[in-house]
Amino acid sequence: MLPEILDFSSIRDAYSKGFTPLDLVEEVIARCNASADPAIFITRTPEDQLRAAAQELMARAPEANSLPLWGIPFAVKDNIDVAGLPVTAACPAFKYHPDKDATLIARLKAAGALVIGKTNLDQFATGLNGTRSPYGAPRSVFDSAYVSGGSSSGSAIAVASGLAAFSLGTDTAGSGRVPAAFNNLVGIKPTPGLVPNVGVVPACRSVDVVTVFAATVGDGIAARKVMEGYDAADPFSCVAVPVKLPSSGLRIGVLEGAEREFYGNAAYEALYDAAIERAKSLGATIVPFDYAPFRQAAELLYNGPWVAERLAAVKDFIATNADDFDPAVRTIIEGAKAYDAVGAFEGKYKLEALRQLTKAEWEKVDMLMLPTSPTTYTVEAMMADPIVKNGHFGRYTNFANLFGYAAIAIPAGFDTEGHLPAGVTLIGPGFSDEALAPFADAMHRSLGAGMGKAKEAAIPEASRVADGDDGMISIMVVGAHLTGMPLNHELTGPGGRLVKTCRTAGDYRLFVLPNTTPPKPGLIREPGLAGKGLEVEVWKLPPSAFGNFVNNIPAPLGIGKVTLDDGSQVSGFLCEPYAVEGALEVTALGGWRAYIASRQ
Amino acid sequence: MLPEILDFSSIRDAYSKGFTPLDLVEEVIARCNASADPAIFITRTPEDQLRAAAQELMARAPEANSLPLWGIPFAVKDNIDVAGLPVTAACPAFKYHPDKDATLIARLKAAGALVIGKTNLDQFATGLNGTRSPYGAPRSVFDSAYVSGGSSSGSAIAVASGLAAFSLGTDTAGSGRVPAAFNNLVGIKPTPGLVPNVGVVPACRSVDVVTVFAATVGDGIAARKVMEGYDAADPFSCVAVPVKLPSSGLRIGVLEGAEREFYGNAAYEALYDAAIERAKSLGATIVPFDYAPFRQAAELLYNGPWVAERLAAVKDFIATNADDFDPAVRTIIEGAKAYDAVGAFEGKYKLEALRQLTKAEWEKVDMLMLPTSPTTYTVEAMMADPIVKNGHFGRYTNFANLFGYAAIAIPAGFDTEGHLPAGVTLIGPGFSDEALAPFADAMHRSLGAGMGKAKEAAIPEASRVADGDDGMISIMVVGAHLTGMPLNHELTGPGGRLVKTCRTAGDYRLFVLPNTTPPKPGLIREPGLAGKGLEVEVWKLPPSAFGNFVNNIPAPLGIGKVTLDDGSQVSGFLCEPYAVEGALEVTALGGWRAYIASRQ
Repeated sequence: MLPEILDFSSIRDAYSKGFTPLDLVEEVIARCNASADPAIFITRTPEDQLRAAAQELMARAPEANSLPLWGIPFAVKDNIDVAGLPVTAACPAFKYHPDKDATLIARLKAAGALVIGKTNLDQFATGLNGTRSPYGAPRSVFDSAYVSGGSSSGSAIAVASGLAAFSLGTDTAGSGRVPAAFNNLVGIKPTPGLVPNVGVVPACRSVDVVTVFAATVGDGIAARKVMEGYDAADPFSCVAVPVKLPSSGLRIGVLEGAEREFYGNAAYEALYDAAIERAKSLGATIVPFDYAPFRQAAELLYNGPWVAERLAAVKDFIATNADDFDPAVRTIIEGAKAYDAVGAFEGKYKLEALRQLTKAEWEKVDMLMLPTSPTTYTVEAMMADPIVKNGHFGRYTNFANLFGYAAIAIPAGFDTEGHLPAGVTLIGPGFSDEALAPFADAMHRSLGAGMGKAKEAAIPEASRVADGDDGMISIMVVGAHLTGMPLNHELTGPGGRLVKTCRTAGDYRLFVLPNTTPPKPGLIREPGLAGKGLEVEVWKLPPSAFGNFVNNIPAPLGIGKVTLDDGSQVSGFLCEPYAVEGALEVTALGGWRAYIASRQ
Repeated sequence: MLPEILDFSSIRDAYSKGFTPLDLVEEVIARCNASADPAIFITRTPEDQLRAAAQELMARAPEANSLPLWGIPFAVKDNIDVAGLPVTAACPAFKYHPDKDATLIARLKAAGALVIGKTNLDQFATGLNGTRSPYGAPRSVFDSAYVSGGSSSGSAIAVASGLAAFSLGTDTAGSGRVPAAFNNLVGIKPTPGLVPNVGVVPACRSVDVVTVFAATVGDGIAARKVMEGYDAADPFSCVAVPVKLPSSGLRIGVLEGAEREFYGNAAYEALYDAAIERAKSLGATIVPFDYAPFRQAAELLYNGPWVAERLAAVKDFIATNADDFDPAVRTIIEGAKAYDAVGAFEGKYKLEALRQLTKAEWEKVDMLMLPTSPTTYTVEAMMADPIVKNGHFGRYTNFANLFGYAAIAIPAGFDTEGHLPAGVTLIGPGFSDEALAPFADAMHRSLGAGMGKAKEAAIPEASRVADGDDGMISIMVVGAHLTGMPLNHELTGPGGRLVKTCRTAGDYRLFVLPNTTPPKPGLIREPGLAGKGLEVEVWKLPPSAFGNFVNNIPAPLGIGKVTLDDGSQVSGFLCEPYAVEGALEVTALGGWRAYIASRQ
């Protein structure tokens, strides 16, 4: 009854037809037992416990799909607390037994989601490749010679191979994005602070972010919405104020010149170029930008004092258990001892100086589109040169959390042989999480790479992310605010955008108001009048600018609802009736522009 | 021609009567030469250079008061670059000769202000007391046995003794506020990032703020406005979005219980209590709050990794010149060596955890009012116990920059013998700098402690800070949005406040609109109608809420300008004329409330 890849809408569809969460867990158990990759899970939820969870859900919320994530199975990276399952962070000697769910886990469970197990990771979430675990190296679902990507390796493989509908990663450098790219998944990386980290083993506490792997953007966003929200117990948790992006005419920043680095992987570069072409075809304006300050910030994450956060997270444990660490992880973490507090603050100064440089780039663009990873490697190649090659994977991801951005990684297609997938990541300002999603979803559908292992699968229509509400308010202008007219600057000044030129419905009359400077018309509706309508423009303004604009309109003008020729209604200029008594009527001219022309 | 204290309005008044900047600099030179305190300046602007600057100004802008700070003399703390004058940071061996003005100095000069000299400070701005300088310890202008406060010691004394109209301090722990308290001045401490630090010797670079000492709040704000504005060359410079505060009904947080600590200074405690009573009399609501998380953050500034920023600022110099440091300053700065990068990040975690705790307190209040310093000491007492007693001064100041707040310190009156002054500081959220000023000014005037040395001086009316624009938009409602009516929640939900109940002008007619749910009236103006007006309410909404409110109003209603019975005009509900044709008129009932009552 379920497809190879467990997208939400297929599960919900099955549930609506009588399939139950108990049926689902049996299916998941069977798939896990049949899985070819032995390194996905560190701990699976005991089968009876998983069945009991399904039964508990059905008792608590009997109606199918009556909770946001009713009966949706998910896997949890093994550095996040799930009550009753051990946490290892991929270091057996570190194991502990939490008796409480992480805040975000509690929220997911309350929304009806079912934990199927704890997944493998690069130890202490230190790595982007997936080979740094004593529990084995999960493999790309497309070729077991290749790395899975990390550090959220097992979580990505669980979704890409159809064991879970979504899974949780954690992302400091890029651990919620790189494995998405290597396994043809969507990776939702929230803005730091949006999802609380209470109950998550820290990597770099000031920049760690819990992420979602999913088959579609819509699925990932749905899970993130359940997880997000302020928790005072996390020092870095925020009360988010969503940032809007334009719903059309997006300006998308792309790499150019020397900043294009794919470490010789021509197939990946071609896929990046194809994604740029696809963005254009979806109406975006492509804007090459200077990646240098972003790259320099990316380099600070490992070659700077932030590694001391990794040491801070495990300092007592490493003091007694240094030999229990993966050698590469230990080398990285112990590298932190080279930094004193002066170095820590100097790193912060460098980062903030680079942030100032990025501001000029953000003036040019609404979002960035970068390769998720510039290349990939076999497990063998990675093990032979683990620090340098791991660093390659982070070239286009490491800066995002340091700067507090939101990001969504999407599948970008397969190399020429249809062998290995690549990804691109859309990156927006902090708290643009929701605003990034419609374009990310449109790109995922347009690029046609399927979902996870199912390369040919169509993205279900039910998961489509609606076009973004950009939060702007439309306003119809009919006189001195038209393009080129004396008061047009009152629209353009506070960030107004022209939406369209059109006509009103046929039952409006237009008058020349006497004694107005600059000259202004008055629009009056007269139901029943069978005119041709009047030429007007529709603009959009941010709500506060619209509010101030309305407040500054002098009598006898005001803002009401005006019906346009397509039957839609929009806020627009109207006039008090006393003011048009005896005034010159110019309805027959068809608009204010024609009247002004007629006077010259 | 000039009063003892050089407030801006007295100088401008003199200029408008023919006094010139050249006259002024002669007066300033004479006052400086006659000054009793030899420790105010480290370097005075050479007299001929000061005269030349006045002449240059008169040539550049001949009309009196034609620039924002035309001919206003100011003193500069000797850790800020002024081209042509050496910088010492109160460490002779550190001296350098900048060939460029600090960004904020260039802005002040462009606005017509005249630099009279570079002032003494606690070495490297490390201290709150004013005794840590090889150039001597400036003294309280009220008793030379007492400390001036620091680190911006000379700057405060210059203004308090009438040598300059304003002066610049820098404030990391409280150096722009404590000396204001001890010398009966206003201290404007901007939000970190508002005034760029390009050309300022760092103390703790991530939290340093350039401040203004002035005789009045209005003067200080005027100078700050010239200084502020983004400069990309400062990593911590911000593009500010001003935060508004209510223009009435302010909720002011004050100390309570065990958090009230004055180190035995009963006079200072009594002055704090008197200031609380005064705030009440000005209409504020007094709200005791929990100071503990603020105090704990304050303690982090010196007993935490932030001291490493002080070491970062001078690390090369101290390596070769440790013996050139003031012993207390050296002890503090070298204390930074105890912190490694792990400790630096752990300090950040603590600070952010404390910030989360403050959020509950900020829910209760709009601003805090705290003692600027809980006590004062003689120079002798301070020198005998320099670290502990200095720490007392920072009890209520040290947290402000760590949390990114704005603050204004004001004079709060003199102890029982009229001997030494105390201050209180109003503290608001980041970027509430402008919003804090009207209440700070009203308090300064109401507390009646004069300006600097001139205890009895009246605060000039010309410097009054106008009541804050709280950024809200007024809207008149006439029907279903009135208090208690079905749609009133559309005003209260998004933060609306009732301003008043009143009547419209007499020329409005009110109709019952047919087929509306809930029932709604239509208001139409008919000039010439001599009615009694209609009962309405005026509410206030934030601009974005007002914008969304307007956009959600259905036809035939809209928002235009309505004239009230006092002749004022306000945005308010009007109706399209077609909709009232044949409708029941209820003008004679005097309002919608009466109509609804008449139906029941």
